Amino acid sequence: METKAQVLYDFAAEPGNNELSIREGETITITNQNIGGGWIEAKNSRGEVGLVPEDYIETSNGNNPWTVFDNNASGGFSNNWAAQPEGTETGKTSSNAWPSGGHGHPQAYQGPGAEDDEWDEEWDDVKSSGGYAESEAGEGGAINRGGAHGSSMKIALNKFPGFSKSGPELYLLSKQPAKGTKLPVYSGEVGPVWAYPDYQLDCVVADPKKGSKLYGLKSYIEYQVTPTTTNKPVNHRYKHFDWLYERLLEKFGSAIPIPCLPDKQVAGRFEDEFIKMRMERLQGWMTRMCRHPVISSSEVFQLFLSYKDEKDWKMGKRKAEKDETVGVMVFSTIEPEGLPDLDLIEVEQKCDQFNRFTRAMDDGVKDLLTIGNEHWKRCTGPLPKEYQRIGKAFQNLSSVFTSSGYEGEAALTDALTAAGKTYEEIAQMVAEQPKKDLHFLMETNNEYKGLLGCFPDTVGVHKAAIEKVKEADKLVAAGKITPSDKTTMSKRASTMSYSLQAEMNHFHSNRIYDYNRVMQQYLEQQVKFYEMIADKLRHAHSQFTTM
Amino acid sequence: METKAQVLYDFAAEPGNNELSIREGETITITNQNIGGGWIEAKNSRGEVGLVPEDYIETSNGNNPWTVFDNNASGGFSNNWAAQPEGTETGKTSSNAWPSGGHGHPQAYQGPGAEDDEWDEEWDDVKSSGGYAESEAGEGGAINRGGAHGSSMKIALNKFPGFSKSGPELYLLSKQPAKGTKLPVYSGEVGPVWAYPDYQLDCVVADPKKGSKLYGLKSYIEYQVTPTTTNKPVNHRYKHFDWLYERLLEKFGSAIPIPCLPDKQVAGRFEDEFIKMRMERLQGWMTRMCRHPVISSSEVFQLFLSYKDEKDWKMGKRKAEKDETVGVMVFSTIEPEGLPDLDLIEVEQKCDQFNRFTRAMDDGVKDLLTIGNEHWKRCTGPLPKEYQRIGKAFQNLSSVFTSSGYEGEAALTDALTAAGKTYEEIAQMVAEQPKKDLHFLMETNNEYKGLLGCFPDTVGVHKAAIEKVKEADKLVAAGKITPSDKTTMSKRASTMSYSLQAEMNHFHSNRIYDYNRVMQQYLEQQVKFYEMIADKLRHAHSQFTTM
Repeated sequence: METKAQVLYDFAAEPGNNELSIREGETITITNQNIGGGWIEAKNSRGEVGLVPEDYIETSNGNNPWTVFDNNASGGFSNNWAAQPEGTETGKTSSNAWPSGGHGHPQAYQGPGAEDDEWDEEWDDVKSSGGYAESEAGEGGAINRGGAHGSSMKIALNKFPGFSKSGPELYLLSKQPAKGTKLPVYSGEVGPVWAYPDYQLDCVVADPKKGSKLYGLKSYIEYQVTPTTTNKPVNHRYKHFDWLYERLLEKFGSAIPIPCLPDKQVAGRFEDEFIKMRMERLQGWMTRMCRHPVISSSEVFQLFLSYKDEKDWKMGKRKAEKDETVGVMVFSTIEPEGLPDLDLIEVEQKCDQFNRFTRAMDDGVKDLLTIGNEHWKRCTGPLPKEYQRIGKAFQNLSSVFTSSGYEGEAALTDALTAAGKTYEEIAQMVAEQPKKDLHFLMETNNEYKGLLGCFPDTVGVHKAAIEKVKEADKLVAAGKITPSDKTTMSKRASTMSYSLQAEMNHFHSNRIYDYNRVMQQYLEQQVKFYEMIADKLRHAHSQFTTM
Repeated sequence: METKAQVLYDFAAEPGNNELSIREGETITITNQNIGGGWIEAKNSRGEVGLVPEDYIETSNGNNPWTVFDNNASGGFSNNWAAQPEGTETGKTSSNAWPSGGHGHPQAYQGPGAEDDEWDEEWDDVKSSGGYAESEAGEGGAINRGGAHGSSMKIALNKFPGFSKSGPELYLLSKQPAKGTKLPVYSGEVGPVWAYPDYQLDCVVADPKKGSKLYGLKSYIEYQVTPTTTNKPVNHRYKHFDWLYERLLEKFGSAIPIPCLPDKQVAGRFEDEFIKMRMERLQGWMTRMCRHPVISSSEVFQLFLSYKDEKDWKMGKRKAEKDETVGVMVFSTIEPEGLPDLDLIEVEQKCDQFNRFTRAMDDGVKDLLTIGNEHWKRCTGPLPKEYQRIGKAFQNLSSVFTSSGYEGEAALTDALTAAGKTYEEIAQMVAEQPKKDLHFLMETNNEYKGLLGCFPDTVGVHKAAIEKVKEADKLVAAGKITPSDKTTMSKRASTMSYSLQAEMNHFHSNRIYDYNRVMQQYLEQQVKFYEMIADKLRHAHSQFTTM
């Protein structure tokens, strides 16, 4: 069971830090992969054991941003489908211990001396606000970010310790009046739908700037986020995005799948490319959130996009963190408008249908990612190498011909050299093409993989609620609830189902839009690519003289 | 040093023939590869040893017609360059013991019950004519066909036993008057050139027909050969082509590289494809011979193309076989017209220059064949498989989408299915493309590889002559030759050099023509290919609706 790894870059251990110095090309044995924080424990050939940055080594030949997605796909992800939604029980990871293992971008390695923007920075302001105090206290309200790339979403079913662990009955049997903004569900053309705003919010994430604090001891990247509503930019660091994610997850996660943020990564080596990639993914995430009618109109999201000043931001944060309508209680704010109550059989059928669909789509998306990943490897590896060799062979033959001493073959040798160079150019085009087309296809599918990874939890909440309603008769018989409670439970399960249906319809319409767009973009770029090759070869062909 | 082989097809041993029954998929150990006649000795897992047809097994993964060329390239061929031209000494293979080992077309396997057209047929008429009697007698005049694919040409320096073995002095010191048609060499624009006819002969090899003899016991394929001069077709079997090859080799081989015929192969399984392939290659060989001014105007070649009747053919054959102006004596018929005698230094320089060029070109051609072979494998193997998988993934996603139950996504799913099918079509196009372009590039380079494989022998004759002339002073001093003999030798070496230069110039002009043509053809087909892909993808793109 020993895992060998190849060292990609030199790394010099810092004394007294349990680190192990490694050299490029060295083979090491991984002794503990569960260190976390971007480190793993490894042993070198001399038997020395210590910590090395996981981005400095590779265990298999990953040469593109999607390699690890596949690895995760077989392991961590499929477990989610099998796991029952146990709510708070699995969440033992404290929210600032980042599980950065297995992020996707091999070009983003931490170079020697590179400042890590938020890595080892203390989250003091967050801690002092109390928002994470509970999560660190233990089981209550713990949030597990799961594996890499949003393949899991553990919903905070219960923010405060002391409530029942089992989840949905907190809402099903709640006697409290609903607090917070109402979330209506209407009957639309395609079935139950959320209330969509007239104006479609969007925002631009741009202009990443390096900032620093503590007299330059700590540096970080700040992104400019400009909503299309106010058109006034606000600045946010990655940790603010993460704060937003946590709030959205706590508040809406039972009803709406909240995809994970792009991975927190160790920056370095190709820092600019990494920042660009993260920004692109943050933009994707923000756009998706903006598109969601419930999320985009929520107070916390509006605060994030358009706080007036530091004071406004701090106050808004504190308020959001004190929000009690979180977890399953979000359903208490959902109000089906003009929709008849559904019986339990219908509720269950809908839930099962969504479950089947999201599972099937998850399989399809992962399949496409695996294939895309292999295609990426071929297009950037052996294929251009082969075109290059063909190009070199033509040019080589041309220079042999030139040495013949025979008169009047310049026309042939010039054309042959040009043809050879053309194939070398094609080699380069082939190698660069995936960035122009496959990249977006992969990014979109990767986003969907993250989103689909949230569904088992969302569906799980609903299944748990259905089970509770099924038990209602027994509970009435045992005198634990009243017949009126039972009626309420059934009605609330119906509300939950409308919420889920509205969310599924939102998902479907977005999916159709996204896949339409990405397929068009992919095919358009593919057409351009093949046209360009044909053009180049046509030109090469024209260099030969007809005899 | 054990060589394992995979059994490709079932083969049932005939009792009493030392054969070994083998089954498809079985692994066997080759115990003797030098059996000949298309058989090798092998041992199965039960320890039983016997003969198996070598075409029923494979030792490495050869999956296209050029695999074996490469294998030969490293072994048999490069040896030719190192070997000194020993003339008759290496030729111990009797001419009807076919070295069929390692032929190139894996699709042409001998199927069960398939008749082999000339395989086990006795060459009775050839034998009775006496033409092969000498070659079977031993060293004198033996002709070794060398390895597969014309990578070697052993020249019959001396047809009749009793003459000196060492070759060129037979001509250099010959006292006999030259016999046969004169072969003039003129001073052309590019240097010494053969006398080119006004009319460029060509012929069409077509219409292969199965014939039989011995009341149907033996069957063979007869090709129709129609020269552009008479436009009257004559019929020839493969063995007639081979007879012609032998005559041309004997007669002109010292002065003109005579490329081997396409391999004699065990027919069967895909007999039609094999016959087509052989015909195509016979056509290539005949066209090359027609293009050569000396060969095309020779009596034996004219006989082959335009004999009047069976009697004419038989008589012509007998005459050709009795021709005494063979081997180095061909130089006695060469007459440089209006060209000054060259001194030995010039002769040697020219010879060395041609040697360098043909070696360099041989390397270049073999390099291109190796690369082309790999490209062939990729284009027919992993690449289309990948496009197919991409196509399937799109179609699969489309059918998952169809199962959503969401209304109004038919436009997307139809387009996605169409895109998927397009990639499946592209997969097929990719797999079939090499037959349309790479094939001809490979065939031409393969022809040149065969031709270049003859040059070491041709150049060797010249080098041996140069050495003899260098020894002339010593021979005069020893009283073995007269000073007048020495002058004759020097003059004749000059004649040989003009012959070589004329031949090189012929080679160069053909080379320029051939490579110009094949590169144009290749690029033209490549352009069409990429345009077709772009068209298909453009159509797939148009199926998506703009939102």
